[in-house]
Amino acid sequence: MQLATTTVYAIGLLTVILAFAYAGYLTLWVKKQKNENKTIERIAGLIRSGANAFMRKEYTLLAGFAGIMAVLIFLFLPKPVWQGGAERNLTMAIAYVAGTIFSAIAGKIGILVASLANARTAEAATHGIKPAFLIGFRGGAVMGLMVVGACLLGVMGVLLLTGNSSMLLGFSFGASSLALFAKAGGGIFTKTADVSADLAGKVELGIPEDDPRNPAVIADNVGDNVGDVAGMGADLFDSNIASMTAALVMAVSLDGGIVNGQFGSKVMMVIIYSALGLLSSLIGIFTAKIGDHGSPTKALNNSTYVTTGVFLALTALATLLFKDFSWRIWGASAVGLLVGVIIGLATNYFTDDNAPIVGKVAHASKTGPAFTILSGVSYGFMSVLPAMVGIAISAMVAYKLCEPIGPGYAMYGISMAAVGMLSIVGMIISNDAYGPIVDNARGLAEMGGLGEETIRVADELDSAGNTVKAVTKGFAIGAAGLTVISLLGAFMSEVNAHIEEINVGLAAAGKELMALINGFDIMNPTVFFGIIVGAAIPAVFSAMLILGVDKNAQRMISEIHRQFKEIPGLAEGRPGVEPEYNKCIDIATTGALKELIPAGLMAIVATLAVGFIGGVNAIGGFLLGNIISGLLLALFMSNAGGLWDNAKKYIEAGNEGGKGSDSHKAAVIGDTVGDPFKDTAGPSINTQITVVSLVASLVAFIFINLHIF
Amino acid sequence: MQLATTTVYAIGLLTVILAFAYAGYLTLWVKKQKNENKTIERIAGLIRSGANAFMRKEYTLLAGFAGIMAVLIFLFLPKPVWQGGAERNLTMAIAYVAGTIFSAIAGKIGILVASLANARTAEAATHGIKPAFLIGFRGGAVMGLMVVGACLLGVMGVLLLTGNSSMLLGFSFGASSLALFAKAGGGIFTKTADVSADLAGKVELGIPEDDPRNPAVIADNVGDNVGDVAGMGADLFDSNIASMTAALVMAVSLDGGIVNGQFGSKVMMVIIYSALGLLSSLIGIFTAKIGDHGSPTKALNNSTYVTTGVFLALTALATLLFKDFSWRIWGASAVGLLVGVIIGLATNYFTDDNAPIVGKVAHASKTGPAFTILSGVSYGFMSVLPAMVGIAISAMVAYKLCEPIGPGYAMYGISMAAVGMLSIVGMIISNDAYGPIVDNARGLAEMGGLGEETIRVADELDSAGNTVKAVTKGFAIGAAGLTVISLLGAFMSEVNAHIEEINVGLAAAGKELMALINGFDIMNPTVFFGIIVGAAIPAVFSAMLILGVDKNAQRMISEIHRQFKEIPGLAEGRPGVEPEYNKCIDIATTGALKELIPAGLMAIVATLAVGFIGGVNAIGGFLLGNIISGLLLALFMSNAGGLWDNAKKYIEAGNEGGKGSDSHKAAVIGDTVGDPFKDTAGPSINTQITVVSLVASLVAFIFINLHIF
Repeated sequence: MQLATTTVYAIGLLTVILAFAYAGYLTLWVKKQKNENKTIERIAGLIRSGANAFMRKEYTLLAGFAGIMAVLIFLFLPKPVWQGGAERNLTMAIAYVAGTIFSAIAGKIGILVASLANARTAEAATHGIKPAFLIGFRGGAVMGLMVVGACLLGVMGVLLLTGNSSMLLGFSFGASSLALFAKAGGGIFTKTADVSADLAGKVELGIPEDDPRNPAVIADNVGDNVGDVAGMGADLFDSNIASMTAALVMAVSLDGGIVNGQFGSKVMMVIIYSALGLLSSLIGIFTAKIGDHGSPTKALNNSTYVTTGVFLALTALATLLFKDFSWRIWGASAVGLLVGVIIGLATNYFTDDNAPIVGKVAHASKTGPAFTILSGVSYGFMSVLPAMVGIAISAMVAYKLCEPIGPGYAMYGISMAAVGMLSIVGMIISNDAYGPIVDNARGLAEMGGLGEETIRVADELDSAGNTVKAVTKGFAIGAAGLTVISLLGAFMSEVNAHIEEINVGLAAAGKELMALINGFDIMNPTVFFGIIVGAAIPAVFSAMLILGVDKNAQRMISEIHRQFKEIPGLAEGRPGVEPEYNKCIDIATTGALKELIPAGLMAIVATLAVGFIGGVNAIGGFLLGNIISGLLLALFMSNAGGLWDNAKKYIEAGNEGGKGSDSHKAAVIGDTVGDPFKDTAGPSINTQITVVSLVASLVAFIFINLHIF
Repeated sequence: MQLATTTVYAIGLLTVILAFAYAGYLTLWVKKQKNENKTIERIAGLIRSGANAFMRKEYTLLAGFAGIMAVLIFLFLPKPVWQGGAERNLTMAIAYVAGTIFSAIAGKIGILVASLANARTAEAATHGIKPAFLIGFRGGAVMGLMVVGACLLGVMGVLLLTGNSSMLLGFSFGASSLALFAKAGGGIFTKTADVSADLAGKVELGIPEDDPRNPAVIADNVGDNVGDVAGMGADLFDSNIASMTAALVMAVSLDGGIVNGQFGSKVMMVIIYSALGLLSSLIGIFTAKIGDHGSPTKALNNSTYVTTGVFLALTALATLLFKDFSWRIWGASAVGLLVGVIIGLATNYFTDDNAPIVGKVAHASKTGPAFTILSGVSYGFMSVLPAMVGIAISAMVAYKLCEPIGPGYAMYGISMAAVGMLSIVGMIISNDAYGPIVDNARGLAEMGGLGEETIRVADELDSAGNTVKAVTKGFAIGAAGLTVISLLGAFMSEVNAHIEEINVGLAAAGKELMALINGFDIMNPTVFFGIIVGAAIPAVFSAMLILGVDKNAQRMISEIHRQFKEIPGLAEGRPGVEPEYNKCIDIATTGALKELIPAGLMAIVATLAVGFIGGVNAIGGFLLGNIISGLLLALFMSNAGGLWDNAKKYIEAGNEGGKGSDSHKAAVIGDTVGDPFKDTAGPSINTQITVVSLVASLVAFIFINLHIF
């Protein structure tokens, strides 16, 4: 069967409408659930307004940032506007702004639903695990469906309106800008609040977690929403857009362009695969069920497996139906998906509390905190091996599978492996957003005094969230790895497109032509220079974010001390006395955004500096170095952080001395170190790599023309 | 002036004789110093015999290992022996064994003199800083002169006897094998003892550092000798040999071989530069002086600067005199040396207690140990930037400087930058070995009851050792970075030499020729596969070593507890009651060697696996990934460890609450985490990279013929 471009658009649009409709239905369903407890409603209201305050401030700042960026893009990208092409530059600037807006809306809606779902999940937990699970899960699913639907809609929109795949780089860069704010900023916010609440509350003052006397407790719950719901959503929105963009830039080049608005088969394949991925996630979400005494972990994992299976079947069917679709490319995306599962399982081995490693770290904690740290760092280092080998193998297999199709197909194959890994991103986001919702619900159950049994149910839901998070995080990092590899391919495509254009002019003037770039040789000193500098950037970026949390937490802890000293009756818990929650939220918000900007700028400035020193060759190396060390550090920090978190929980469950023992104190220190590792720096590195890769592609033309060596 | 090969040999040999003679004189001088305190002599004797016990066990194990390796080398390297060339393989095996023996002897002599010097330094400290400094420094200088002399002698010997630069790879591999045992094994030993002595002694039992009741205290002092003297010596012996080997392999290829035993000018240049480096170190050592109340830090740094200046002047003179020597190559090695100084200064900024960063980590410790760790990790991450940018720039400048000379010269230029950086290695080793000698002296002064004033003098000497260590460590890591880059060049040279040889056969058979390797393209999936896997190895290797220290320390702490429980009168310090020091030394020795072997094998097996999967392209990538992540982690761990150590000392000097405060406790935890970072894993990564690079070059022929992809 032959596919027409209009059919592709129709299929894509239909899936998006279906996803949005289902998300709308789920939102109404969640809203309809019981929400009658006054205390909970009041506290949930505080959390909601705190989250809104952060988002408002963040979006205001972002609007300014995006405005400046849009002007710069108009002036310089893809080519300086005074060299002609003002319309093209304007389109790029608009695509950029659109990228930020799409991502912002998807995040906003996710937060909205999550903050509706948390209170209702808490209340439903009084009736058992079954109803509570469903509310938590469906609240998260809205985010998943919205984000992926918005991705597909945005990408199709840009293609339809501009007919130029380079404009997708602008759109994707917009999404990355937002992700940088949302993920890194949200990450600093959430860990500032978490660390301060724990240190000042649990450790110093000896009051329980989620105690309403703690001034940081609302900020902590707000953090779950802005860091883990909105931030994670923006992050995966960004990864998903970036993987589609990389695939489409190469697809368009393989198809020989988008002629008269008609897609070639490669472009069609990317869009159809993405649409089928969204459909599969929808089906997976639909099938998520749990019995009266069922295991929420199993329910979450099962729907992930359903999504995976449906995606493989549907794409196989599509490949069977449409004669232009290649089985080799299907193979590449299947390999991506399967390796994603393997990486997830390996991550699980290192971080799950039923697996041996968590027990070892807990045991080491008996000798003191230094050994908690040393063993966690060590196993964190070890955990990078399976994931990196998995990424290496999937990239090589995808390449080798697609190489025989023809020149240029190999890198396209890798990008389709990334699209395959990210196909189930709707499901991943659902599972991920489920986590903070039930985490909040647990807090609300405690603060609302819903009783031991309800807290136990909420704890079970929460623990399931942590376990599946490890698996989905494996997917996210694996996919990011493949995506940035294909962004390297996209960068080379862009560079060569520019060189060909320049050569037309040179040929007309009878001058010597520029050579196309065939690759980046590590024995070339300019490439090598780029590699080494690029490798240092994720380390510096992580350091800046962690120090940001550190500084910000110091400020918040001082504020907590002040409140306990100055507000009469607060420490004793006199009825009616409440801490000034807003002060803590303010500190977290202002500090997070203040600490984030230098880190983001550092990465961008380093890219520009390397490009102006060594040109496109240095940038090719720079991207590679950035990817390698970024993957290494992101995996290390995410896994070590998860490991410490679960080692602490393992001890709290009564092992190695249990709660209050010296090993518990050591494990709490480990967990505090791990918090910014796993929730601030680790996951922000993905975004940093994407931003840097996109900047490189966007500024490619200027680097070709202007560099020292 | 034209140089003859015999003149080059004569200059080299004369320098070696001069160095050995001066070392002999210094040994006699040290021996002549007063050594009359009975207690000190008895304890020094215990340390000496403990060190000997470790060395004996280590060398026995190594002899077995080297024997097996020699047989394997004879069977397989450079080509399987059944394909002919038994004599060549035998020579390679002998060169390998010679490499281990040379390094072992140099290490043994260093330990011997160091363990003579420590007691005498302690005693001299009763008379002030001037005499004590001189004994400590001259004791260390013996090690420096012996190691560098042995390097030059060995390399010249191999060239003279075999006339084949490939045999240097075998010799260098022998040195690396020993370095792996000495550095990683010694590193595990020393940190096992240090951590256990501190934790069980200072923290749990509340007895002071170096208290003779502590059963681990002798093991701790033994550790300083076997880890920091012998291990560091073997490590720098290895780096120096490797840098000379890499330069010589490329030099021989540029010279068109060693024809009739006559060197070309490139080979001459490497040997002359190395000889002049040794001579400069000798002059630097000779000029080391200190006033009655002078600063030992200044004295150490001054002699480093003297060495640097003399080297630059002498090599410039040589370039002026000999018409075949190129100013561009002189420039490359000067750049290497200067960047080494810059890296050293940058390292100093991050770890020196007079610089701001140490104060910040100390301040963060006030909030608790989690913040000690988080801020140390962050600044550790940041500290990689200047060093990596320095290495990147020096490699690029050296390359660009030497590229115009002709094809192949650029990589040779990088190798000469490494030779330049390592030219002053004799001085570096002297400074480095000075550290543990005065550290031991401090312990002996305390255990021998020499009084407060003597301990203060010893402390001042010790602190100078720590400060200059940061600078010399910067040199060592920078040089290792450049060396492994040039080993990558050497690997490509070797591969192409094999391919040319294979092509002769193919041409004779009328078959299609194999293409030479021009470089390694990161867009080639096989190269990329290698890069990602290679990047994971240093992380896993470090993890295995740190866990080794961890496990081993657990064993030793149990033993300390047992002794305090079972030996009557030990805890109270009843006169005449002594702990069983030997039990602790045994545990450290056995454990260190047991934990080290899997880590070393893992790195070698991974290299072979990648080579058999992806052939020489994958190995090219593998080496790059290994270098990048190895540099990153080595810098991070060394600097973070040094930073924590000095933050603790800064607090102990009375800042941020001083000794015994909560911030001090937090800083001690940071220091314990940092110990295996900076003295076990961090510096062992250099050796791991060198081993892997040499294995790759040695097995290149087999990889060319046998691989899956």
